[in-house]
Amino acid sequence: MRSEREILTPKYPHLLHGGDYNPEQWLDRPEILECDLRLMKQAGINCVSLGIFAWSKLEPAKDDFRLDWLATIVDKLYEAGIYVDLATPSGARPRWLAEENPEVLRVDERGKRARFGGRHNHCMTSPFYRERVAKIDARLAKRFADHPAVIMWHISNEFEGECHCELCQKAFRRFLKEKYQTIENLNKAWWTAFWSHDYSDFEQIEPPGASGEQSINGLTLDWKRFVTAQTTDFMNQEIRTVKTYAPKIPVTTNLMGLSDVLCYPSLVKELDFVSWDSYPNWHEPGQNVYEGMLDSFTHDYMRCLKNRPFILMESTTSTVNWRPVCKLKKPGMHRLSMLNAIGHGAQSAMYFQIRQSAGGPEKFHSAVISHLNSEKTRVFREVEALGAELGQLSDLLYDSYVEAEVAILYDKESKWALTASCGPRNAGLDYDRICVSFYEYFWNAGINVDVIDSSASLEGYKLVITPMLYMYHNDLQSKVRAFVKNGGYLLSTALSGYVGSTDLCFTAAEEKEKLEDVLGICVEEIDALYDTEANATTWEGIRYPLHTLCELVTCGGAEILSVYEKDFYKGKPVLTVNAFGSGKAYHLASYGNKALYKALFDRICRKAGIEGVLGKAQIPDGIGVASRRNGNKTFVFIGNFSEEEKSIEDRIKLKPFEMQMVVLECP
Amino acid sequence: MRSEREILTPKYPHLLHGGDYNPEQWLDRPEILECDLRLMKQAGINCVSLGIFAWSKLEPAKDDFRLDWLATIVDKLYEAGIYVDLATPSGARPRWLAEENPEVLRVDERGKRARFGGRHNHCMTSPFYRERVAKIDARLAKRFADHPAVIMWHISNEFEGECHCELCQKAFRRFLKEKYQTIENLNKAWWTAFWSHDYSDFEQIEPPGASGEQSINGLTLDWKRFVTAQTTDFMNQEIRTVKTYAPKIPVTTNLMGLSDVLCYPSLVKELDFVSWDSYPNWHEPGQNVYEGMLDSFTHDYMRCLKNRPFILMESTTSTVNWRPVCKLKKPGMHRLSMLNAIGHGAQSAMYFQIRQSAGGPEKFHSAVISHLNSEKTRVFREVEALGAELGQLSDLLYDSYVEAEVAILYDKESKWALTASCGPRNAGLDYDRICVSFYEYFWNAGINVDVIDSSASLEGYKLVITPMLYMYHNDLQSKVRAFVKNGGYLLSTALSGYVGSTDLCFTAAEEKEKLEDVLGICVEEIDALYDTEANATTWEGIRYPLHTLCELVTCGGAEILSVYEKDFYKGKPVLTVNAFGSGKAYHLASYGNKALYKALFDRICRKAGIEGVLGKAQIPDGIGVASRRNGNKTFVFIGNFSEEEKSIEDRIKLKPFEMQMVVLECP
Amino acid sequence: MRSEREILTPKYPHLLHGGDYNPEQWLDRPEILECDLRLMKQAGINCVSLGIFAWSKLEPAKDDFRLDWLATIVDKLYEAGIYVDLATPSGARPRWLAEENPEVLRVDERGKRARFGGRHNHCMTSPFYRERVAKIDARLAKRFADHPAVIMWHISNEFEGECHCELCQKAFRRFLKEKYQTIENLNKAWWTAFWSHDYSDFEQIEPPGASGEQSINGLTLDWKRFVTAQTTDFMNQEIRTVKTYAPKIPVTTNLMGLSDVLCYPSLVKELDFVSWDSYPNWHEPGQNVYEGMLDSFTHDYMRCLKNRPFILMESTTSTVNWRPVCKLKKPGMHRLSMLNAIGHGAQSAMYFQIRQSAGGPEKFHSAVISHLNSEKTRVFREVEALGAELGQLSDLLYDSYVEAEVAILYDKESKWALTASCGPRNAGLDYDRICVSFYEYFWNAGINVDVIDSSASLEGYKLVITPMLYMYHNDLQSKVRAFVKNGGYLLSTALSGYVGSTDLCFTAAEEKEKLEDVLGICVEEIDALYDTEANATTWEGIRYPLHTLCELVTCGGAEILSVYEKDFYKGKPVLTVNAFGSGKAYHLASYGNKALYKALFDRICRKAGIEGVLGKAQIPDGIGVASRRNGNKTFVFIGNFSEEEKSIEDRIKLKPFEMQMVVLECP
Repeated sequence: MRSEREILTPKYPHLLHGGDYNPEQWLDRPEILECDLRLMKQAGINCVSLGIFAWSKLEPAKDDFRLDWLATIVDKLYEAGIYVDLATPSGARPRWLAEENPEVLRVDERGKRARFGGRHNHCMTSPFYRERVAKIDARLAKRFADHPAVIMWHISNEFEGECHCELCQKAFRRFLKEKYQTIENLNKAWWTAFWSHDYSDFEQIEPPGASGEQSINGLTLDWKRFVTAQTTDFMNQEIRTVKTYAPKIPVTTNLMGLSDVLCYPSLVKELDFVSWDSYPNWHEPGQNVYEGMLDSFTHDYMRCLKNRPFILMESTTSTVNWRPVCKLKKPGMHRLSMLNAIGHGAQSAMYFQIRQSAGGPEKFHSAVISHLNSEKTRVFREVEALGAELGQLSDLLYDSYVEAEVAILYDKESKWALTASCGPRNAGLDYDRICVSFYEYFWNAGINVDVIDSSASLEGYKLVITPMLYMYHNDLQSKVRAFVKNGGYLLSTALSGYVGSTDLCFTAAEEKEKLEDVLGICVEEIDALYDTEANATTWEGIRYPLHTLCELVTCGGAEILSVYEKDFYKGKPVLTVNAFGSGKAYHLASYGNKALYKALFDRICRKAGIEGVLGKAQIPDGIGVASRRNGNKTFVFIGNFSEEEKSIEDRIKLKPFEMQMVVLECP
Repeated sequence: MRSEREILTPKYPHLLHGGDYNPEQWLDRPEILECDLRLMKQAGINCVSLGIFAWSKLEPAKDDFRLDWLATIVDKLYEAGIYVDLATPSGARPRWLAEENPEVLRVDERGKRARFGGRHNHCMTSPFYRERVAKIDARLAKRFADHPAVIMWHISNEFEGECHCELCQKAFRRFLKEKYQTIENLNKAWWTAFWSHDYSDFEQIEPPGASGEQSINGLTLDWKRFVTAQTTDFMNQEIRTVKTYAPKIPVTTNLMGLSDVLCYPSLVKELDFVSWDSYPNWHEPGQNVYEGMLDSFTHDYMRCLKNRPFILMESTTSTVNWRPVCKLKKPGMHRLSMLNAIGHGAQSAMYFQIRQSAGGPEKFHSAVISHLNSEKTRVFREVEALGAELGQLSDLLYDSYVEAEVAILYDKESKWALTASCGPRNAGLDYDRICVSFYEYFWNAGINVDVIDSSASLEGYKLVITPMLYMYHNDLQSKVRAFVKNGGYLLSTALSGYVGSTDLCFTAAEEKEKLEDVLGICVEEIDALYDTEANATTWEGIRYPLHTLCELVTCGGAEILSVYEKDFYKGKPVLTVNAFGSGKAYHLASYGNKALYKALFDRICRKAGIEGVLGKAQIPDGIGVASRRNGNKTFVFIGNFSEEEKSIEDRIKLKPFEMQMVVLECP
Repeated sequence: MRSEREILTPKYPHLLHGGDYNPEQWLDRPEILECDLRLMKQAGINCVSLGIFAWSKLEPAKDDFRLDWLATIVDKLYEAGIYVDLATPSGARPRWLAEENPEVLRVDERGKRARFGGRHNHCMTSPFYRERVAKIDARLAKRFADHPAVIMWHISNEFEGECHCELCQKAFRRFLKEKYQTIENLNKAWWTAFWSHDYSDFEQIEPPGASGEQSINGLTLDWKRFVTAQTTDFMNQEIRTVKTYAPKIPVTTNLMGLSDVLCYPSLVKELDFVSWDSYPNWHEPGQNVYEGMLDSFTHDYMRCLKNRPFILMESTTSTVNWRPVCKLKKPGMHRLSMLNAIGHGAQSAMYFQIRQSAGGPEKFHSAVISHLNSEKTRVFREVEALGAELGQLSDLLYDSYVEAEVAILYDKESKWALTASCGPRNAGLDYDRICVSFYEYFWNAGINVDVIDSSASLEGYKLVITPMLYMYHNDLQSKVRAFVKNGGYLLSTALSGYVGSTDLCFTAAEEKEKLEDVLGICVEEIDALYDTEANATTWEGIRYPLHTLCELVTCGGAEILSVYEKDFYKGKPVLTVNAFGSGKAYHLASYGNKALYKALFDRICRKAGIEGVLGKAQIPDGIGVASRRNGNKTFVFIGNFSEEEKSIEDRIKLKPFEMQMVVLECP
């Protein structure tokens, strides 16, 4: 695993506490800015993200740069002990810029160019936009390169979306030409003979979309890959600009968790570290435990993107303003969710936002400082208490890290392919939820999990789980093959390994690629179940319901552990295990519930020698246990995400939304 | 209140009975027109609306005016004792007009101009359309100015909708420039620094809409205000035209109740009186009582627009044709709904439509005369009976009027702002239903209510209720302040008074504007509840459920009447009352049910000296009681909107859908 | 009825077994093509549809024709005993063709031309497309005219859809001018005076659609008629082309069952026989029996289009890939559904598809040969068994045909009119389901039914049912009048006969057209019921619920059989019967359940002398009985579509999804 000391922010190597700060909205109200400084200090804020949407104040007209007000604020913050995460302002452009050259505005899939409005909606290809971004980035980098307050760059904001303009289309064709070399290769890879859709020239290729080509899955998939590639290229240009003038300040950009728009493993290569914005849907009735798992799973995914600690860049102090029903964060939930992030590898608790705006679409989003402008609010006091606690924990935790023996393979490109593909079940197939359902056991048992994608190495893991991994690409077959051969435990599940990297089905001729020898089975058919339908299987005397999909498999060498209870495939295998090399490959031909997964993972973990950080302690449902290690010290984070009191073998009692931390010393 | 005799139609000062009549569809069928006259007379019809959609027959080609057929019909009607509400035909244009100049066709929010079709969809700005409308209006006015049959002008029809064409955009910019004077003022009012959306010139401003600017709430709000202003300007031009040639004929236009497109209080200033089209959703299972309340509430809103009697211009004789499920009006419902309208201030019972068309989209809409062409149908006989009854009631009721001591503040601009704003609850927030829920008590108790908007005076009321009044504009703070100070009773509720007239949140610095001193409380947070969630409060020994929103308030000087039962804000105030000046200001920090509102209003009415027209009589649920007064006579309308028999203290027995009228003499 | 021997495919007069075959996707994989031949022979395949989407391989660049590969495959198939249904490739064009002239791409109702993509989406008017299609069709026809393998032409594929381009609009105007001659006639027929929508010139007419004219029902209706006419014209050009060079090969095109886009009775005139693609939604929980009825009903509709046997051109071997949840066909269902088709008049069992594609949108659609490339799969073995059985049945069944004494009038133009019309119930009015609900009795009872449209003759039937036949056109009044007069039994139901051929309501003046004398009733009102509402009627001591619509009728001469149980029309007639001439006309003023229809049809069949093929045997629910006759032999197809075992009077026992065939000899 990883051992050397990971310092994300060399100038200020502490757990960070802070968030997005938008003084540009209040420049005519100096008393507000003074009040902010006072209250931030009181709340233990030590870092703010500045300038994310300030371009219109930094360059109100073309080449009319006004950085003094920002410098003044940075100085004042630094005097107050507050460091700065300085943003490049490319996330939202000034109006004059779109007027001067509308190519910066995105074109939608129907060929319609957007008018000015919103944010995060510029063309990633536009040379004009890139030039203007480079100019303002360079100004900022030159001005603040050596400012002691600035500890990192916040490159743009929440990269997302796609543009179908001519410039992007040209770039897409270049991307494809580089990838496939000849149009024959592309036709073959995309199976374009279907419906006579063969291309005779790269120039014929248009992005997929409404009123155009929607029936070539390979095109859809490569378009999404291109969008990630083009976004990466845009971001990397920003990185190169700021690094040119401020080479010592590390860069990050704030990612959006499990968002399906970009493939983050491809995006993050030139970032110094990963940061992300976490907005769980807390307090929807009955959902807190699932939201806690989902948030933890996402932290693990973010951490594994660069196998380093990460920054929690945005989160709420209480409610968001954009959900159908906006719930307040109940007392305790703020501390619980922030420390849980740290338990999964975060080095910070940062918020959107320090101060509520008076107007604009986010004026009802919670903040450290509300419209009441007061330090007496419940929310301010919870933030203040957390700030104090983080100050005390910083030295203890800063150098620790999460170590895992189990990996779940969560692959964005496979999800894209599955979503674009038609069949075998087009409604209600929730890949993320399926993946999290396999995560639950470990989250609860105190067994750390790496959430990795198909490009990652499998070395060093004892168990790898590949839930609904429809597409096998990135040489995954050979990695999985080697992993099991060398003694690893694998769990494969229904609808896995059906297609290769361009969404072509593996056919009989390529059976080795389907890992049939590794799994010891052959999949003949796959049935989809309505939500109102269920099958079941009985294993070791216990009956478990099955749902969503049922593969009909025939066994090669695999041992059958359990079979279907009904339908015409009654008696056919559901759960199998195959010895391959010195490892074991399990296959679950359907999807089950928590109890089935517990029985299965209890068995596998016992055999594979995997144990939770709390040993054999019985941990009740609703509790998530994470741990970070530094040398022989292990810091355990035990959080109760349920609304009931819970206790672990009468030793540890947790109130609803309570987080307790325990330090274990290992010899 | 109001006392002088209000004559809407000086030439024919009677309760009107009639409706929309479209002889232009049957000009080649003289036997149909003869039959119509005969049946109208038999049904007691005394007024018809003529020519609403007849432009293509009045001017079949440009400047080729053909008014003779209309004059013949008007003559014949007058001979038959039927008066005419003469329409300007601008609601639907002839095809040649759109061909000559497509600027009359609206442009949608994506910039796409409509093709010819439909109705009520012309550009309000187009000089060409205004010129053509003025021409046909002038012709009609000259021709019929002195015709004894014509007792009012029906200006256009059901004004609605918006246009995004360049002409409208220019007008919008002029409107804004006049309002804000400088772009700096506008930027500040709209909080445009958010996401760098500052304007540097009025010329940059585009209407809000898809693929454009959607994130500036102040822009959205001012655009809606502009649409009302431009529609008003269009309408007023029509009014000026007809008044030029026919100065003695009063003008109205038919409004659409609670429709959210236009702000009627701003629109109606130059009308002589208000009229409206009422289409309750009668007989959806379980909904009749609510529909009865909603219709009554809307009558009250329409009446208060000009604080005068109004004309019920359209309604059904039985079913509409456009609902998902089109129910027949059950026997009795027609009389009930028409007399209830009169009880709330109407001077008419008028229908869409006199005769069913044979074709077109509304051919299955009910009418006085159906496709059967018969006076023997059930519907015809109910209409005929009502016609006879109205003839008898006319002298008695014509000069009476509705007097109210209670006002509910129902504000369209506040609703617009709330709808455009993001948070705290974006789904399922039904402002109209909330307002009607506070109306129910009074409707049932025989206490007349004025439904007014924030531009109205509060003088003369004993109780003012401001349900969910999110935006405080029109100097409302000072009016409310003065009202309470001078002894009035106020009920404010959750999510009220959060923003000013451009949707900027009141912040700490402006606390006086938030009426914190008047209410004696400070709102710190607001929680939204899912529809499946509830809180509760116990007041004077009775427990009431709470729903939708829960404010967390801290009390200044207010007395706490009841507190939350659960969640982390258990024990915090729900219902408070504050003495301010010689009045009392109540605040309900959440939303409750009918029982809570009954307990609350029983108390307030007792203290404020408000009493129902039937005194202390116990009135069962499902009954609505309205009253009109003329001197010492009070006409009471008691309607049973439920499907059960009801009785009021064994004195008055009402069958389902029965309406009884009682005359009280007061000394 | 029909008696002469009907030979669809003179060169190979056998029951066909086969399906769509796409070797053009595998031209670089000769081992796949060899494997296909071997497996097809093993499966008893005797006919494949070739070349449907092969245009890009047949003419990869303009005028560069490459038919040799196809000829080679046809030769090899023929050597293997497999005949060919040769397709014209117009269903999907090559990319170069759209590039050369974009007029081939459709324009949508908003005026936007599609980009290249998808299939079945060419303009039917484009002269360029017609020219290119004629050229490739001619090439194919010349090359294969005398090939002994080619037994029919598959003209294009699944014709559907509409185009709004200028060329289509011009053709539409010509179509209207020919139909109406003068604009006055059109205005009158379309009732355009409504909302001033009169036309003054044919040139003003645009197709109906979003952002244009949507309020003229006659326009909507005539547009749909035009779309059918233009598609027919396009298809007929293809037919003429192939007939020119290959006059002896019969032509068909594959229809889409009850699809609402085209009016098939108008389309099929120049086809030699009808074929269609059947995709029931098997195995949705609880739906199999309904799906079985619906599929049988559709077979009957297809058969009656030309009153000839038909080809089942496409169906599945197991699952489709495009439903929300794609179910496998359970064992038995394949044989059941294929033999049921034959029982209703099919001469084939053909599938989409012989081989699964490796890529493309349909790669997960089932096939005879799956990605496993194996003859050992369950699906292959079921297909193989059916192939063998069909081989044995062919001589026995080929010359038999379905004879029916009962007709259900299912009219597409009436459905269009009802759908376009507004009222009396706009949501949840499912015309197809209503029609099938009247079909159920006969399907179950072994009484063959012809499903005909309003253009068909009624002669020879004993009973004609006209469920919800909203529009009476095609001289239907006189045909119905004559049918009853001459002794026929008629069942009419609510919402029938309201409008004529341009959607104008019959009014009092035209009462004869409304068949009031035939039915002996007059409809005064029609009430719509919410799905949560019901009325009921008691007839001969049994109470039946009623739903959807309730007409209020007054009786002329009709006898009242039962009355409404409640609502204000309690006691009014529901079911009536009228003697007219020597026949009887029943009217059901509402809609009931299966039990009511059983009681009603038991009575009518007894009186009319209609008997099921199994005589007085009690046939349980869930079983469908069809029969074909040849001379004195009747072949009875008894299928159990339910999931329970069923038995017919202990004589015939059927397992779930079992089909049994019985041969009866009649003297």
